[in-house]
Amino acid sequence: MDARVILLSHGDGGALTRELINQVFFAHLGNAILAQEGDAACLPELEGRLAITTDSFVVSPVFFPGGDIGKLAVYGTVNDLAVSGAVPRYLTAAFMIEEGFTIEGLEQIAASMAAAALEAGVQVVAGDTKVVERGHLDGVFINTTGLGVIPPGVDLGYHHIQPGDRIVINGSIGEHGVAVMGRRQGFSFDVQSDCAQLGGIIGFLLSNCKGVKFMRDPTRGGVATALKEIALQAGCDFYLEEEKLPVAARVRSICDLLGLDPLYLANEGKFLAVVAAGECDRILDTLHQHPLGRQACCIGEVRPGSGNVFVRTAIGGTRRLELYTGAILPRIC
Amino acid sequence: MDARVILLSHGDGGALTRELINQVFFAHLGNAILAQEGDAACLPELEGRLAITTDSFVVSPVFFPGGDIGKLAVYGTVNDLAVSGAVPRYLTAAFMIEEGFTIEGLEQIAASMAAAALEAGVQVVAGDTKVVERGHLDGVFINTTGLGVIPPGVDLGYHHIQPGDRIVINGSIGEHGVAVMGRRQGFSFDVQSDCAQLGGIIGFLLSNCKGVKFMRDPTRGGVATALKEIALQAGCDFYLEEEKLPVAARVRSICDLLGLDPLYLANEGKFLAVVAAGECDRILDTLHQHPLGRQACCIGEVRPGSGNVFVRTAIGGTRRLELYTGAILPRIC
Repeated sequence: MDARVILLSHGDGGALTRELINQVFFAHLGNAILAQEGDAACLPELEGRLAITTDSFVVSPVFFPGGDIGKLAVYGTVNDLAVSGAVPRYLTAAFMIEEGFTIEGLEQIAASMAAAALEAGVQVVAGDTKVVERGHLDGVFINTTGLGVIPPGVDLGYHHIQPGDRIVINGSIGEHGVAVMGRRQGFSFDVQSDCAQLGGIIGFLLSNCKGVKFMRDPTRGGVATALKEIALQAGCDFYLEEEKLPVAARVRSICDLLGLDPLYLANEGKFLAVVAAGECDRILDTLHQHPLGRQACCIGEVRPGSGNVFVRTAIGGTRRLELYTGAILPRIC
Repeated sequence: MDARVILLSHGDGGALTRELINQVFFAHLGNAILAQEGDAACLPELEGRLAITTDSFVVSPVFFPGGDIGKLAVYGTVNDLAVSGAVPRYLTAAFMIEEGFTIEGLEQIAASMAAAALEAGVQVVAGDTKVVERGHLDGVFINTTGLGVIPPGVDLGYHHIQPGDRIVINGSIGEHGVAVMGRRQGFSFDVQSDCAQLGGIIGFLLSNCKGVKFMRDPTRGGVATALKEIALQAGCDFYLEEEKLPVAARVRSICDLLGLDPLYLANEGKFLAVVAAGECDRILDTLHQHPLGRQACCIGEVRPGSGNVFVRTAIGGTRRLELYTGAILPRIC
């Protein structure tokens, strides 16, 4: 491609838009459905109930330890489908790009998306490219919308949650938040984002276990915000055991140093599951067999209540978690 | 809502995000599916082949004569489904908002989207809200992704196009481009955007006529760019009659004054159809019965060739149209 940076003309729908789409997006993300090049993509027949989700990614910086905006844009949407019990199938990808962004950076992002899509078993079937004048958008933003199929027999929902249920997480928390913050501030924290696709481990879990009632991925706002929202919807209280919360030593020491609470830090490869108490051990045994679930553990339980989330601290106290108010880390995803 | 402008905290996934979603987005766009509030929306069963399309809207200014970014974001995606022969059913809506944007403006946009969605017969079933620091995004960007169902018997595609076919448009061209440009530059052009949803007229056309082979809405890049792309894909030449091109007197005089070609100006309520010659009259008669098709006309024909688009001028000359190179009007949609 002649131009080494994105020009406004790359967004005018004309010759340069065509060139950009062909040489960057189709080159990396192409498939038979995308190649229809209609105004809409016609999909092969899908059997079963459909689930749909949309997410925009405005993360800053675009490249961070353990990932980049492309990988995040695929995994983030795939994970929203997966925690809803759906098998992710198709994505759309819409790029909003600042004039002056490098073509090389865009190619790196497209290649990263392609690798992530392959790993997650999804195809990008429709796309869009817009260019905004320099200074009117920061780098590149990506929207992905995902379509998945809910297998017969899978029925997750707040309404299944009841006192006595256990709360499970598949691994340690706070790594994405720390990794992005470190890169943004120019610190060398030596922490990688946990950015991963959860379709595999959740499919493995649901096909081997019963008793999974509800799942959510604790991204923006972290475990605390996700659990608070679930508790409110379920109309129960959640009790967490602080000492059971898996936090990597490195993340914990950075949090101690900077006064951050890992419970509010974003994760991009974790899911919370509310499960029937009697199935909890079997669920944990199953998760432990998967690479993304080696550290899976039970972090708390559900009790009668009205939407509170409490943490019992190691020294015997109890504190109440609230929805976060005040963005410590804007543009984390 | 307490804050009168968007704060970074409105995007942190916490209490203010929840408040914004409830008081602005759910208040205007709410429905039973959106109210599931899961990570993905579970859709009622859809019969038939699915079509999907995605589009981001970065139009500047956000409010323009005849419409706003909200209306555009609904109609733009609905129209991409409609020209593909699909009946639009569901939309996702993702908002990227600049810190400091007014809540009032956002409410106006949400109300406009709600009215547009109602008119187009679609429901917004999933959403997302991100906030970006002041100066890192210009106002508000919206991505909408649309899902539609292709009725049995509808089969549009480039491969049906053949020499002898006619090229039809449902009305006059260039109004959206002129309206947005005028508002941006502070001119009082007295031209309204043609912004309209095409699901109704296209459904009416397809259920009453045969012989429709391919359709496209000539948005960014205008009629010239859309036809050039279709001609290239079909492997035919297109011949247009300049004097048959419907251009409102006001648009024509503004174009003459500013040296613009209406063939390259964006439209947001128009579609081009390539139709069988023998059905053309019946198709035009049908279109004339619909409010959005009163000025429908045949503007040209398909001939053997290799992807050229020619315009025969009123004085007997012929000029060749190319894909546009050089953005005269960035951020037109």
